[in-house]
Amino acid sequence: MTFRAMKPMDGTPFGDEIAEHSQNDVTQMIQKAASVANELAKLSPADHAKLLRTIGVHIESAREQLVATACAETALAEGRIGGEITRTTVQFNRFAELVETGEHLKVAIDKANPDYSPAPRPDIRKLNQPLGVVAIFAASNFPLAFSVAGGDAASAIAAGNAVVAKAHPSHPNTCAIIERCVKGALKECGISENAFSIVQGVSPQITHWLALDPLIQAIGFTGSEIVGRILVDLAASREVPIPVFAEMGSLNPLFITNSAIAERSEALAKGLVDSALMGSGQFCTKPGLVFVPDDAQFMSTIKTYLATLAVAPLLSKSIADRFSSAIAELAKISGVEVLSGTASSQGFGVTPTFFITDWKTAQANPHLLEEHFGPTTVIIKSAQDNFGAIAQSLGGQLTSTIQGTDSDSVAELIAILSQKSGRVIWNGFPTGVAVTAAMTHGGPWPSSSTHTTSVGVDAIYRFMRPVSYQGLPQSALPVALQDANPWKVPQQIN
Amino acid sequence: MTFRAMKPMDGTPFGDEIAEHSQNDVTQMIQKAASVANELAKLSPADHAKLLRTIGVHIESAREQLVATACAETALAEGRIGGEITRTTVQFNRFAELVETGEHLKVAIDKANPDYSPAPRPDIRKLNQPLGVVAIFAASNFPLAFSVAGGDAASAIAAGNAVVAKAHPSHPNTCAIIERCVKGALKECGISENAFSIVQGVSPQITHWLALDPLIQAIGFTGSEIVGRILVDLAASREVPIPVFAEMGSLNPLFITNSAIAERSEALAKGLVDSALMGSGQFCTKPGLVFVPDDAQFMSTIKTYLATLAVAPLLSKSIADRFSSAIAELAKISGVEVLSGTASSQGFGVTPTFFITDWKTAQANPHLLEEHFGPTTVIIKSAQDNFGAIAQSLGGQLTSTIQGTDSDSVAELIAILSQKSGRVIWNGFPTGVAVTAAMTHGGPWPSSSTHTTSVGVDAIYRFMRPVSYQGLPQSALPVALQDANPWKVPQQIN
Repeated sequence: MTFRAMKPMDGTPFGDEIAEHSQNDVTQMIQKAASVANELAKLSPADHAKLLRTIGVHIESAREQLVATACAETALAEGRIGGEITRTTVQFNRFAELVETGEHLKVAIDKANPDYSPAPRPDIRKLNQPLGVVAIFAASNFPLAFSVAGGDAASAIAAGNAVVAKAHPSHPNTCAIIERCVKGALKECGISENAFSIVQGVSPQITHWLALDPLIQAIGFTGSEIVGRILVDLAASREVPIPVFAEMGSLNPLFITNSAIAERSEALAKGLVDSALMGSGQFCTKPGLVFVPDDAQFMSTIKTYLATLAVAPLLSKSIADRFSSAIAELAKISGVEVLSGTASSQGFGVTPTFFITDWKTAQANPHLLEEHFGPTTVIIKSAQDNFGAIAQSLGGQLTSTIQGTDSDSVAELIAILSQKSGRVIWNGFPTGVAVTAAMTHGGPWPSSSTHTTSVGVDAIYRFMRPVSYQGLPQSALPVALQDANPWKVPQQIN
Repeated sequence: MTFRAMKPMDGTPFGDEIAEHSQNDVTQMIQKAASVANELAKLSPADHAKLLRTIGVHIESAREQLVATACAETALAEGRIGGEITRTTVQFNRFAELVETGEHLKVAIDKANPDYSPAPRPDIRKLNQPLGVVAIFAASNFPLAFSVAGGDAASAIAAGNAVVAKAHPSHPNTCAIIERCVKGALKECGISENAFSIVQGVSPQITHWLALDPLIQAIGFTGSEIVGRILVDLAASREVPIPVFAEMGSLNPLFITNSAIAERSEALAKGLVDSALMGSGQFCTKPGLVFVPDDAQFMSTIKTYLATLAVAPLLSKSIADRFSSAIAELAKISGVEVLSGTASSQGFGVTPTFFITDWKTAQANPHLLEEHFGPTTVIIKSAQDNFGAIAQSLGGQLTSTIQGTDSDSVAELIAILSQKSGRVIWNGFPTGVAVTAAMTHGGPWPSSSTHTTSVGVDAIYRFMRPVSYQGLPQSALPVALQDANPWKVPQQIN
């Protein structure tokens, strides 16, 4: 079976026919990856860092081709794709900086101590080791930064794992270029190219083949709650269950206080519209739910500003179709005001659409409180006094935001939101996720399936596990645990 | 409904009738815990450390009563119970030392930087926060160190969570004393006693009530693979799945090389018997599977030494019954030699029983390759050349051990075992788990359900999650994230 990419801009096919991988292909890929996983696991910090940087160099050198291909396959703007390429290489470089130090190995050495309490202890030494082969599922909405060699794959490779990555069928040619880049870097560094492969295809069965293969040790996923749940269930159903690090849905609620509205109603309205329409509303951190005191100027600014704006076509026909039918359903709810932007009839184009309603209507119509991927937001008129109770009723979120002023007492609201979210934002908008040590991209279910982050260097620890060695002679210890410490990794001793 | 503890020594009841908690009781306990969880979460490092140490002091002050009660309920020796009490307080004290430093909060502060690559970044600050209410399931085999205030509960409380712990029905009176100790310490420290409660009962439904309550945020469990799997499945079936940190079964394979046998056959035989019978064979790190070259002296030493030994009665009637029927089944397998220790007819007494067979018979009879809780071990005669292939075929293990000499080339075997195990041991026996930074007590499924350790200070991170704060004014930030840093916690800045 073959399939072709589609251009969202005009709905026509793009690139050559692509052969879908068979179950046997997938099994072979995984077996080959497993048979060479130890080549990655054995790399010295310096060689490992060199590999990560070399991947970045190969991706950078394909920039022109990547921009042309990804823009055609996603309808995302050139500037956005260029930024994503940079972000992708930066991710590899940040991991290279970490891996080079050996800090991620978290070496701890407790030497033998006959006087230790509560009992004498033997020589015990611990370090983090990679898992083996990790399956990565590419996201649709970041064709580079969260795709086959995006944050999840970079984390897994930086942790020393081999990777088999499922290409997203909405940007398969972009994924194929990236595969060549990574394999090229592996080859240049003297490591088998089988350590990284991508699976192409549209069949939902591919997910099962990957998730259920006994050689797969962990799964990284960025996508919808529905697919994330399928993966979590598949992984739990295995004879040997494996962890699934899924980053899924989030409403990213935004609370606007009375004093903020009084101070900067117009700026807030425009800021909200811009944030919600960024990337055609296809960001996992899109503000999808806004709680705001009823303010005529705020609502009117939204209405007039939105009316002037169109967005680029959505990433795929199925995303555009789901968006349009969700919007049509929400518009039918009585007690909901519908605000429209400028329609686009190009390819997979849609009409940006906001909704204004009240909390009572939203509670009675749960669809209003679900994530709708694309350029839409539900604005709920509500008194500031209710923010605490509303926040308490929400599920897990990647982000929660408060727009207020110094005069607001929001300590309790912040405390509630911090229990519901991975990131709490004050006087900002949630779109934009800095690649930095202090970033958490993840949060309580359903925003993610584990208490980890998928952005920032801490993401590496998802794909490692601690192993202790007791009483081994120096020569039999992993290099990082030896007293001579030839790699000069940080060793926490006794 | 009520139930009573039993004395394994003579099979008679011990202590008063104990009322089983109802579903409503359990729900109430969890709700009360949730309503006071923030009291723990808000403690300063100094106050938090004080609470942990005070729990230790209260447990220590109940030592006499605990020894008498636990010895009666478990038939474990006074010295062992005394050691466990010490270990339990040491665990709290070690966590107190960590919590006092604030290091576990893993504070990272990235100040705003307009020149940051790949994009300007706002002020972002991250710390680890507790989850809320954690459910802990006490182990049968460590009535203190892994029971209601054992390693899992200590980890969860040290992380700042409220705890509802299921008492093990084989030592309910011991658990009740511990509950009074912890509640007493909470009260002394000015924290609501509802932050820690225990659930008493024998009904399997209690597991469901705890695991499915929407206010429970994570589960800690030490016990069998069967119950661990039930918990993992229940947690995954929830509308909001939660993590289960289960420490389950392990065979703890032991490989003995030709040169080791040639050098110290008798010491190895006696060491193996002693390790396998320690605590009546009821250790999760009991060596349950031994691969050894066929050596007449080794086998004969095992046989004569074992014949002289009896063990204390097992922890409960159900454990003793399961053991005896498993032993009877294994003894029926053709090609298996049965070695017996001294029978005990006291209470829940059993006969220590070892088996000697070959790899072919073991492969044809999978029961020989399963964990059998109690004083038994399966010795498999096998050539050293086969150790690598055998190791490759085994499932996940808490520990794997090699007994060899300097002349052995075991690098490859160590590498294989490190992929299968949480701890690799050279020239030792696996029983005995030091409470130390470099310890890993956990390993690939089924030995544990996640890539974490349940012993040592790193166990705390199972019950925390990272939360980032973006752009917040100093006064609205959690104390540990403020520039003034009044708690003087380690802050990794930029």
